[in-house]
Amino acid sequence: MKPIYMDHAATTAVSEGALQEMLPYFSEEYGNPSAVYSYGQTGKNIVEKCRERVAKCIGAFKTEIYFTSCGTESDNWAIRSACRLRKDKGKHIISSEIEHNAVRRTLEQLEEDGYEVTYLKPNKDGQISVEQLEEAIREDTILITIMLANNVVGTVLNIKELAAAARKRRILFHTDAVQAVGHIPVNVHQLGVDLLSISGHKFNGPKGSGVLYCRIPLRLPAYLTGGGQEKEGRSGTENVPGIVGLTHALEENTKNLEENAKYLNEQADRMTKSILELPGVTQTGDKDSRLPGFCSFVVDGIQHSVLLVNEMNSRGVCISSGSACSASSQEASHVLLALGYDKQLAGCSVRVTLGMDNSPEDVDYATQMLKVSIEKIRSEQVSRAPRLEGRVTDIASENK
Amino acid sequence: MKPIYMDHAATTAVSEGALQEMLPYFSEEYGNPSAVYSYGQTGKNIVEKCRERVAKCIGAFKTEIYFTSCGTESDNWAIRSACRLRKDKGKHIISSEIEHNAVRRTLEQLEEDGYEVTYLKPNKDGQISVEQLEEAIREDTILITIMLANNVVGTVLNIKELAAAARKRRILFHTDAVQAVGHIPVNVHQLGVDLLSISGHKFNGPKGSGVLYCRIPLRLPAYLTGGGQEKEGRSGTENVPGIVGLTHALEENTKNLEENAKYLNEQADRMTKSILELPGVTQTGDKDSRLPGFCSFVVDGIQHSVLLVNEMNSRGVCISSGSACSASSQEASHVLLALGYDKQLAGCSVRVTLGMDNSPEDVDYATQMLKVSIEKIRSEQVSRAPRLEGRVTDIASENK
Repeated sequence: MKPIYMDHAATTAVSEGALQEMLPYFSEEYGNPSAVYSYGQTGKNIVEKCRERVAKCIGAFKTEIYFTSCGTESDNWAIRSACRLRKDKGKHIISSEIEHNAVRRTLEQLEEDGYEVTYLKPNKDGQISVEQLEEAIREDTILITIMLANNVVGTVLNIKELAAAARKRRILFHTDAVQAVGHIPVNVHQLGVDLLSISGHKFNGPKGSGVLYCRIPLRLPAYLTGGGQEKEGRSGTENVPGIVGLTHALEENTKNLEENAKYLNEQADRMTKSILELPGVTQTGDKDSRLPGFCSFVVDGIQHSVLLVNEMNSRGVCISSGSACSASSQEASHVLLALGYDKQLAGCSVRVTLGMDNSPEDVDYATQMLKVSIEKIRSEQVSRAPRLEGRVTDIASENK
Repeated sequence: MKPIYMDHAATTAVSEGALQEMLPYFSEEYGNPSAVYSYGQTGKNIVEKCRERVAKCIGAFKTEIYFTSCGTESDNWAIRSACRLRKDKGKHIISSEIEHNAVRRTLEQLEEDGYEVTYLKPNKDGQISVEQLEEAIREDTILITIMLANNVVGTVLNIKELAAAARKRRILFHTDAVQAVGHIPVNVHQLGVDLLSISGHKFNGPKGSGVLYCRIPLRLPAYLTGGGQEKEGRSGTENVPGIVGLTHALEENTKNLEENAKYLNEQADRMTKSILELPGVTQTGDKDSRLPGFCSFVVDGIQHSVLLVNEMNSRGVCISSGSACSASSQEASHVLLALGYDKQLAGCSVRVTLGMDNSPEDVDYATQMLKVSIEKIRSEQVSRAPRLEGRVTDIASENK
């Protein structure tokens, strides 16, 4: 039996339309886009058309779109090459405490190399204020990198205001928009960012595809050097089917953004409302500014979210504990700790991210199963360790 | 009409078998390999099986295989992270003058960052001697990077001997094997290299797939940092279909290496022999140690190889001037200049790289068309610029 997949923030199935548009480029129109003959030019032409189509979806110019192999590569490239570009101006970077590891680990490696990073602490909802950012800006600040939407709690951040503050000071602003693009309206020029990372597989495009938006006339030094593809920006033979698939999926999703969001929010609201009826369950993230279909909670009285994920798995529903990339890690989520949850609660976060393939019946079934699972694990833990009982009740009422 | 594709060193069609094995991973088995639930574990399991299968094809251990997004990424990662790893031991690198741009441009960027690179000059065949290498080794040499097979002239280099010299001195040895793997027998332990780069689309795997072999117990610092995929080596959600396709294609090719090489060499020999009947055409590369099906020439009396590539294109045959990545560049090939050809000859190199989809009839047709095209362009150039005539004849006879 096929499981009910409710971890769309981790990855998505390639859409039928995207796959169909990709298929000819594997074994029929496979010429190398760098080749001179017409067979290669077909590949080149489709890549250039895709660049235009992607640009249109996010309000960019065609020349601002660079294809990469994934969101992680886009983040690495943006951050590291921005530092290389501005190396004579300073070594101070500003970021947030709730970034994805693709940003966090990259900043950590830069710290090893002598850069200094200020990590802004968001409020409980995951928001960062313009005042906080402005206070952190220094003479030697060369880059600000703050995500557009958080992958653990679903908060959509006020990047437009933050980027405006950066622009006033002529500091480069990068945003990891991997969770946002394809799910909420994103217009790069309205956002006012210099650099923005996109990942194809988060919106029904293929894995192994990504985009870096880079505002003209800004030109980043290459991070992958070689044959000079992507206007010397990203070398490596173009992954033509991957580019085509990402483009098709982004167009599909962009066309239906509003309609999809309406449906997904209805479903998510129904699930969230029902789950919150349980004691000791708290919704995480910003209630008013969040990704569509994104349900996230911390559940008290459960030792680790993996227990819950496994229980749901055995009931045929795929959900996750938080970030997909560190799903199997026993560590508490750094995002929830940053939002002020204590270590125990941060260790039991649940993320249910709905997609258009989830029917209302799926959602109702999953909601019921989630409630049953929480109660089952709690009762098992309590019967094994009765002294927890009091604590669960206390915190539960405190959280309600 | 479908063109006759004879630029297999640039890229190849994804094989039917590889595509079929890839297909389920786009829209059915699409779970994120990092996810805890069983749906994600399917992705994880297939990636781990692919790692084992790839390892077997090149005589490696499973834990020595890291999946990347392309050969260029593998080269960048190997070289840059080897430098990071050995940064306290020195800043001297040894390479050759005939490397692919994925290595060359990377070394150039390292030179900007204070590294010193010695580029060894090969002989006319494209070979580098152990003595040359040993002479270049210094106390502060931290890395040697020399390609296994050249992409412009098809020479297979004596990496086994060169790597042995490096190992004696405990210097890391990387080889760009992008043109070699899947076409000649490659056993990493017999070669004795520490790092080896592979690209899937060069042997009927998909574009956007690559491998870095990294000899245990060597561990390179990550070049793409993030979620910690590939044992913390290469972050980014695994491109499952890409990994599956690369693996399938590599297995297919490895199984048939000998048989394929026999066929391809017969065809290439017949073409080469016939083309060399023309005056002013010289075979490039090593006659005795070259890639199967690899025909390469310099053609005197033609202003630029693009003329020839275009003429052949109009006759329905895809060939290339040399490196695919710089095909449209008007510059003379750095490889041919390094091999000692003068600027004019280096500007007119031709590369015809045969594949198993080329029938003997295709090869005969292409041979005839190549001869006709060379003569046509020569006569047009001569009629337009009669003073060239004497020179063409002179050099032609000198080259024969």
